[in-house]
Amino acid sequence: IPSKLPNLPTSIFAEMSELAAQHGALNLSQGFPSFHAAQELKDLAAQAIQNNHNQYAPMMGIQELRIAIAQMMQSQHSVAYDPMSEICITAGATQAIFTAIQATIFAGDEVIIFSPAYDCYEPAIKIAGGVVVPVPMQLPDFTIDWDLVKSKVTAKTKMIIINSPHNPSGALLQDADLKQLQQIAVENDLLILSDEVYEFMVFNDHEHLSACRYPELKERCFITGSFGKTFHVTGWKLGYILAPPRLMKEFLKIHQQVIFCINRPIQHAVANYLQNPSTYQDLGKFYQRKRDLFLNLIKDSRFKFKPSASTYFQLLDYSSITDEHDYAFAKALTINHKIAAIPISVFMEGRDPKMLRFCFAKEDEELVAAAKILNQI
Amino acid sequence: IPSKLPNLPTSIFAEMSELAAQHGALNLSQGFPSFHAAQELKDLAAQAIQNNHNQYAPMMGIQELRIAIAQMMQSQHSVAYDPMSEICITAGATQAIFTAIQATIFAGDEVIIFSPAYDCYEPAIKIAGGVVVPVPMQLPDFTIDWDLVKSKVTAKTKMIIINSPHNPSGALLQDADLKQLQQIAVENDLLILSDEVYEFMVFNDHEHLSACRYPELKERCFITGSFGKTFHVTGWKLGYILAPPRLMKEFLKIHQQVIFCINRPIQHAVANYLQNPSTYQDLGKFYQRKRDLFLNLIKDSRFKFKPSASTYFQLLDYSSITDEHDYAFAKALTINHKIAAIPISVFMEGRDPKMLRFCFAKEDEELVAAAKILNQI
Ligand SMILES: CSCCC(=O)C(=O)O
Ligand SMILES: CSCCC(=O)C(=O)O
Repeated sequence: IPSKLPNLPTSIFAEMSELAAQHGALNLSQGFPSFHAAQELKDLAAQAIQNNHNQYAPMMGIQELRIAIAQMMQSQHSVAYDPMSEICITAGATQAIFTAIQATIFAGDEVIIFSPAYDCYEPAIKIAGGVVVPVPMQLPDFTIDWDLVKSKVTAKTKMIIINSPHNPSGALLQDADLKQLQQIAVENDLLILSDEVYEFMVFNDHEHLSACRYPELKERCFITGSFGKTFHVTGWKLGYILAPPRLMKEFLKIHQQVIFCINRPIQHAVANYLQNPSTYQDLGKFYQRKRDLFLNLIKDSRFKFKPSASTYFQLLDYSSITDEHDYAFAKALTINHKIAAIPISVFMEGRDPKMLRFCFAKEDEELVAAAKILNQI
Repeated sequence: IPSKLPNLPTSIFAEMSELAAQHGALNLSQGFPSFHAAQELKDLAAQAIQNNHNQYAPMMGIQELRIAIAQMMQSQHSVAYDPMSEICITAGATQAIFTAIQATIFAGDEVIIFSPAYDCYEPAIKIAGGVVVPVPMQLPDFTIDWDLVKSKVTAKTKMIIINSPHNPSGALLQDADLKQLQQIAVENDLLILSDEVYEFMVFNDHEHLSACRYPELKERCFITGSFGKTFHVTGWKLGYILAPPRLMKEFLKIHQQVIFCINRPIQHAVANYLQNPSTYQDLGKFYQRKRDLFLNLIKDSRFKFKPSASTYFQLLDYSSITDEHDYAFAKALTINHKIAAIPISVFMEGRDPKMLRFCFAKEDEELVAAAKILNQI
């Protein structure tokens, strides 16, 4: 039978995680924590199940959770979202992104993405019949050349997808970036999809500037976040999307067909858990300690790096070790040295800056073991 | 902004459930149980959370659950499915249906559905750019005229969607139906999508004939089922899809983009729970008692009915009471008599057989209270 996505490669995350399992390698490839969620959150979820919150949730999600998200956005960004018309619970950010794209992108519409780009944007655009317009980020700091962006905007451009904090680089969009983006979006009447799933993992004196802080962006913007990432429960598949009513209306029409509603007991658990803002506000400190532990241990290795500003990923430059292609090097590391990472060329149309992405959302002992291996290479 | 689904009405399920809540009416409209899941199943889910099964599941679902489903299909239908290549866990049957359609239907492809048709097929086909070809079922018994089906098949026909046990009528496809379908499918090289979510709710000496029992159907068929319905946990959003490898391959490419993977702890719970086949094999008896209780109580009412052969729905014919349109009558019942049901004309291009659909997945006391109201009308 004909294929909607004839050239889709296997997910690099599934591939590297499987290779790691096969070879008994330490898995720092796919992004997920090796440690556990807070006991309190697990208890809340178990209670919700025992308390029989097990039938269909409303299509947009339970009201308590939507209200809690509105409060979170207010406290983090001093920005108001209406829980009744501007917030929808999703089965993770992936479902949010897919649905937002299907709701707004028509055949022939062009969508600008920045590469390296997380691997779910491009296929979702193609499924909608849209055309992917990749704009390469500038190395070595993964910045955006806005003049280059402007040169890629055509009459067919419908949307720009941004991702800050950025996976895999940890780069953060700055105030000047968001102002440039806002100007381009307004001038060309574009939609924005802002993937902010690492919103709380921001280090030192860096700051996450949500697209919602820019009023003229906000009014044309989908923003997505992920409780799976924020609360160490990637397997719960719980996220959300924020959008002004005119966009939410179209989002919901597709959401209804894609999934109708989301697992209910975990919505009750997270709604309760969010009542204490330290649950998310302390996440930056938590991961900064992990990052610093890891980087301190490998500072004398042959890998070069700039400390990641955000996310739970660290790029390591291996150019002083070998000039092998990153995919080949990642496989060799997994098989021969028992440590798995993600080659980033797969996210950047084959450009190969000789960097691998390591996930440091791991137990301290695993980071110590990983460093020991990396120091020997 | 332009709409992908410009004429999509509000979900009748959400609409009637809201109206019921507003007017304090007994809600026999949207299909979900008012009683609770088994304590054992809830305990298993709570344990899975406490045992830290909270990170990403594999894309197709955890192996234990896929193996348990293969065993279930073997014991129910004596049909083999390979858990490694032919079974995928989904976020309910809705996500399975949506994904199967996006994976296989291209712009201009025609898809035959039988009306009354569950309301998620048509929009999913339209989102894929397909053309919906509704074939009206024959009243009063909601049967299929296969000559009519043949007359609707064109060179552009790509898929036929069947739904047996049938929502809203409870009608079941018979052996002769499935043989006719098989012949049409083979002769015209069509795909089949078989929505079997009520597979275990079958009464008296009726039998559910899964499409998988017909080898030439099976090899061109997606089959979807729903643990939410089978285990009284509609809010868990857990279902599955079965398909031969060539179809599963395309399904997974879309599945990866739509959601990537499904809530993990409930997969562990259901995998364990399925080890005891009585958990699903006793469901028919359980709901038959509910149906009989309800129908026995309203046998002298002015509503006419044939006992439903399957599902947890019962159609009641109100033509001897009024010739009002069913949507108007359903609203009036909810507002004035405090009992909510689903008008079925919304699923059948406006044909209005003067029937409402009542869900009897309710506590006995609620069925008694419902009967008391219906007897007074
Ligand atoms: C859905 S698997 C990928 C997890 C992830 O977000 C990443 O590793 O970048
Ligand atoms: C997803 S809400 C609809 C529930 C249902 O299956 C029905 O009532 O028919």
